[in-house]
Amino acid sequence: MEKPSIIFRTVCPDRPGLVSQLTSWISNYGGNIKHSDHHTDQDAGLFLSRIEWNINDFPIKKVEIYEQFEKIAFDLNGQFNINYSDEIPNVAIFVSKQNHCLIDLLWRVRNGELKMNVPLIISNHPDLENIARDFDAQFIYIDTLNYSKSTVENQILNLLKDFNIKLVVLAKYMQILSESFLEKYSSIINIHHSFLPAFKGAQPYHRAWKRGVKLIGATAHYVTQDLDEGPIIEQCTVNVSHRDEVGDLIRKGRDIERIALARAVRLHLNHQIFVYESKTAVFD
Amino acid sequence: MEKPSIIFRTVCPDRPGLVSQLTSWISNYGGNIKHSDHHTDQDAGLFLSRIEWNINDFPIKKVEIYEQFEKIAFDLNGQFNINYSDEIPNVAIFVSKQNHCLIDLLWRVRNGELKMNVPLIISNHPDLENIARDFDAQFIYIDTLNYSKSTVENQILNLLKDFNIKLVVLAKYMQILSESFLEKYSSIINIHHSFLPAFKGAQPYHRAWKRGVKLIGATAHYVTQDLDEGPIIEQCTVNVSHRDEVGDLIRKGRDIERIALARAVRLHLNHQIFVYESKTAVFD
Amino acid sequence: MEKPSIIFRTVCPDRPGLVSQLTSWISNYGGNIKHSDHHTDQDAGLFLSRIEWNINDFPIKKVEIYEQFEKIAFDLNGQFNINYSDEIPNVAIFVSKQNHCLIDLLWRVRNGELKMNVPLIISNHPDLENIARDFDAQFIYIDTLNYSKSTVENQILNLLKDFNIKLVVLAKYMQILSESFLEKYSSIINIHHSFLPAFKGAQPYHRAWKRGVKLIGATAHYVTQDLDEGPIIEQCTVNVSHRDEVGDLIRKGRDIERIALARAVRLHLNHQIFVYESKTAVFD
Amino acid sequence: MEKPSIIFRTVCPDRPGLVSQLTSWISNYGGNIKHSDHHTDQDAGLFLSRIEWNINDFPIKKVEIYEQFEKIAFDLNGQFNINYSDEIPNVAIFVSKQNHCLIDLLWRVRNGELKMNVPLIISNHPDLENIARDFDAQFIYIDTLNYSKSTVENQILNLLKDFNIKLVVLAKYMQILSESFLEKYSSIINIHHSFLPAFKGAQPYHRAWKRGVKLIGATAHYVTQDLDEGPIIEQCTVNVSHRDEVGDLIRKGRDIERIALARAVRLHLNHQIFVYESKTAVFD
Repeated sequence: MEKPSIIFRTVCPDRPGLVSQLTSWISNYGGNIKHSDHHTDQDAGLFLSRIEWNINDFPIKKVEIYEQFEKIAFDLNGQFNINYSDEIPNVAIFVSKQNHCLIDLLWRVRNGELKMNVPLIISNHPDLENIARDFDAQFIYIDTLNYSKSTVENQILNLLKDFNIKLVVLAKYMQILSESFLEKYSSIINIHHSFLPAFKGAQPYHRAWKRGVKLIGATAHYVTQDLDEGPIIEQCTVNVSHRDEVGDLIRKGRDIERIALARAVRLHLNHQIFVYESKTAVFD
Repeated sequence: MEKPSIIFRTVCPDRPGLVSQLTSWISNYGGNIKHSDHHTDQDAGLFLSRIEWNINDFPIKKVEIYEQFEKIAFDLNGQFNINYSDEIPNVAIFVSKQNHCLIDLLWRVRNGELKMNVPLIISNHPDLENIARDFDAQFIYIDTLNYSKSTVENQILNLLKDFNIKLVVLAKYMQILSESFLEKYSSIINIHHSFLPAFKGAQPYHRAWKRGVKLIGATAHYVTQDLDEGPIIEQCTVNVSHRDEVGDLIRKGRDIERIALARAVRLHLNHQIFVYESKTAVFD
Repeated sequence: MEKPSIIFRTVCPDRPGLVSQLTSWISNYGGNIKHSDHHTDQDAGLFLSRIEWNINDFPIKKVEIYEQFEKIAFDLNGQFNINYSDEIPNVAIFVSKQNHCLIDLLWRVRNGELKMNVPLIISNHPDLENIARDFDAQFIYIDTLNYSKSTVENQILNLLKDFNIKLVVLAKYMQILSESFLEKYSSIINIHHSFLPAFKGAQPYHRAWKRGVKLIGATAHYVTQDLDEGPIIEQCTVNVSHRDEVGDLIRKGRDIERIALARAVRLHLNHQIFVYESKTAVFD
Repeated sequence: MEKPSIIFRTVCPDRPGLVSQLTSWISNYGGNIKHSDHHTDQDAGLFLSRIEWNINDFPIKKVEIYEQFEKIAFDLNGQFNINYSDEIPNVAIFVSKQNHCLIDLLWRVRNGELKMNVPLIISNHPDLENIARDFDAQFIYIDTLNYSKSTVENQILNLLKDFNIKLVVLAKYMQILSESFLEKYSSIINIHHSFLPAFKGAQPYHRAWKRGVKLIGATAHYVTQDLDEGPIIEQCTVNVSHRDEVGDLIRKGRDIERIALARAVRLHLNHQIFVYESKTAVFD
């Protein structure tokens, strides 16, 4: 339906003329810009730019586009990404026993809301195999009890390579990935069931209930080596009261976990997120 | 503190090269762009652009800037506005008996949150004169009972001219401005105490209570000749329950009225709003 | 897990001594009250009471409980309901082509969040039959094109009787039930995809988009003969901006439709809703 | 307008017959109950009850009511409070330099939204004296730089006694009260400018900005000897994005600080809050 587009993103030191330089390059080739957003982080002295234009009729081939932007980015002393909205990435979803985030993501894929393929679902429990089958994904059970973390993680890394996985989504995966793993694979989104940085770590709902908070939260973030310290993409909250037991917090939390995670994955797939200085800028 | 800037906005038919053309003009003169946002309304076939750059060191005078953009806009077949963040406009606030929106706006002006002067407060009731005095504004009581609408509105139009008023804010002003008035003066923001288009017209809280809604709303919008049909700028809601009487709805409503109105006025003062096709696009 | 309980609700004219009278009856038999909520609607002169106590060890049989409360209610000149948390009702879900509310409800049933059985799914389109099969519900396709409304509705009424259906949930069912049907069966919850009373009737998202609202809503309500005028149970909203096309409103709307409908069904199943004077009081 | 009422609250170990016992006492004297809410904290084994009934025509004098409830509470092994809605308490507001919470509270008092007198405003800075004068409150500047904490706090304690202060509201008071002070005076509500327990301590907005959160919060809580660990009464949040500088967080935060604090004070004044086990139960 929607016409495919090229999406260019850069983060570079701020200086005059950047928007003009970038957009001129596109318009010189007759490209019709659909979205063009720019932000200057005054504190960091950085310029963030995201430009999206129609791929149809654009006379330059993908390889050339890359080469030319590589030159431009080199001149700008910046980092850049080029993506194409018609390249649908393979995404692996990691789960444990809870199914709500998994089902929600797969349903959104099927309904066309999330443009991704999910060929692979990995779990440290066998419980959710049926769901994988319903959605034509391969379900791999990894035995984290009888095998060492490094053995298991090597198995996972091989799977990610075999399935050409561009993004991993931790949809209530209750294992911690090692530093060594994260050095080798780092495009990972996690959902944490608290309003970070409150209640980092284990059992956030129990601790929120004990603390007597009046709102609980869910946080979708990129995974880094510092647990629950990765760049935050999306946060949602919901009211709770003294009438809510821990079980009610868990129940209410499922709804905001699903929504925060789905939004974050969608923003990632649409290339709307910039990560820098342990934070995100989300152009929506 | 913040450096003053020039803000350019245009709405014009969409075609390739617009962002490049606009930003090139600025960068050719060495202008450093702080914000550059663009939106294409695919349905309307319109391109919306807002560019903000530092006024310091920009070598072109205001008159020339205007002339040059007039030419560019003519070529683009578009409408345009140029504003300067260091030109603080005079704003008149119209009230009746309720004081909460008035006090809130004046407090935000005093704290530097809203960059405007308020030399004039007009009311069809004498009640709020003290507040005007506290904030060094002239309070004009207009007698809508003993004088005809046209007489009163002519008086108001003269005041707006005398005080060089660039924006009128209806802060719970319980009178309807005539079509004739609106033809002569149309830069007006109103706060309506419902979630428009629900409960247009009189006594929205009473009707919301009677209908048994579970959320009430407030809507800040530009005033047009169709009552409560003007372009919406901002909407807020708050939960209500069966325990809330009409008086509670009115009380809870005051908080969202204040916030919706203040946000709308701020967006207007920062030149972040586009109005077209009876709607707004808010670049925030 | 949770101990089963008896839930008594009454609506009656307000007078002194009501709470004492009701709770004394229970405590005289040694009943341990878990929840006891009371509300006086001053405007209507009505007293609303909901009392929930443990069924275990309560020495009175269900028939007797009913008879005794019938007497009490007669004295109070009030209406009353008695329900048992361990009586799981049969619920029918009506759908058309959209699946998100249906899947969401069935998933919540499977996860134990909604205590109901769903033996029957009725649709005027054949599309969602697979989902019914996955969740072990009978799927009945009703042909609304080739048969008269009265024929179809008689078929539905027979099904509701055959399946002993206590509640019908219209989960994006795009047909209007006739007055005649509603006279015969009236325990029906609908989800309307707007913030009622805004955008009653057809295509609310299209109209919301055209109007340029900054928030969209979803409303779960009981169905009455006045279309979209039934007592409101739950309302949710979500922010939208000029960047959202109609398709984005529909997408964002799905999330709040699911949540508003699921909350309403849960409140109904927990006997937390009172309906009177075309409104609800929700004791949560 | 509203008829004055007696408000009884108790927290006691749960056992059958409590609601009946409490309400029977009231109805035996012909008292007409307006609100009656009860909650059982299953985890703590505690029963919480709040009953409100009309003071008019109630034939027992205040002293007797107290004595009788003292007996009942003794039997129940519980704590209790009796309050009268027509006893308007004296409240002291403590501030530093920021005025938004102070003005907001005083405006709500003047408009009849908060039923309290504010005879005393204490500050460690002289800046807000004018506001105190406008609202007929005595402004006491306390010199925390040249005098020891104990000297200053003794001065404050004397003032609280002289002015018969029943509640202290810390409306952006940037000093920490000592353990010794809190042992002597403990009816204190504070507003903390973060979503507790996130960003306890100093400069929460700066740290929230640095962490890149997508929502910021405000928390109204009772003050205890553990800084920012007191029982939470109310929490509000507002969206932020990468476009918001620290100054924007501070600006947006002011709105939710005002609302969270005003709600908390209102709930306290209406005797709707129970404090137990470092948490609150708020009956609203």
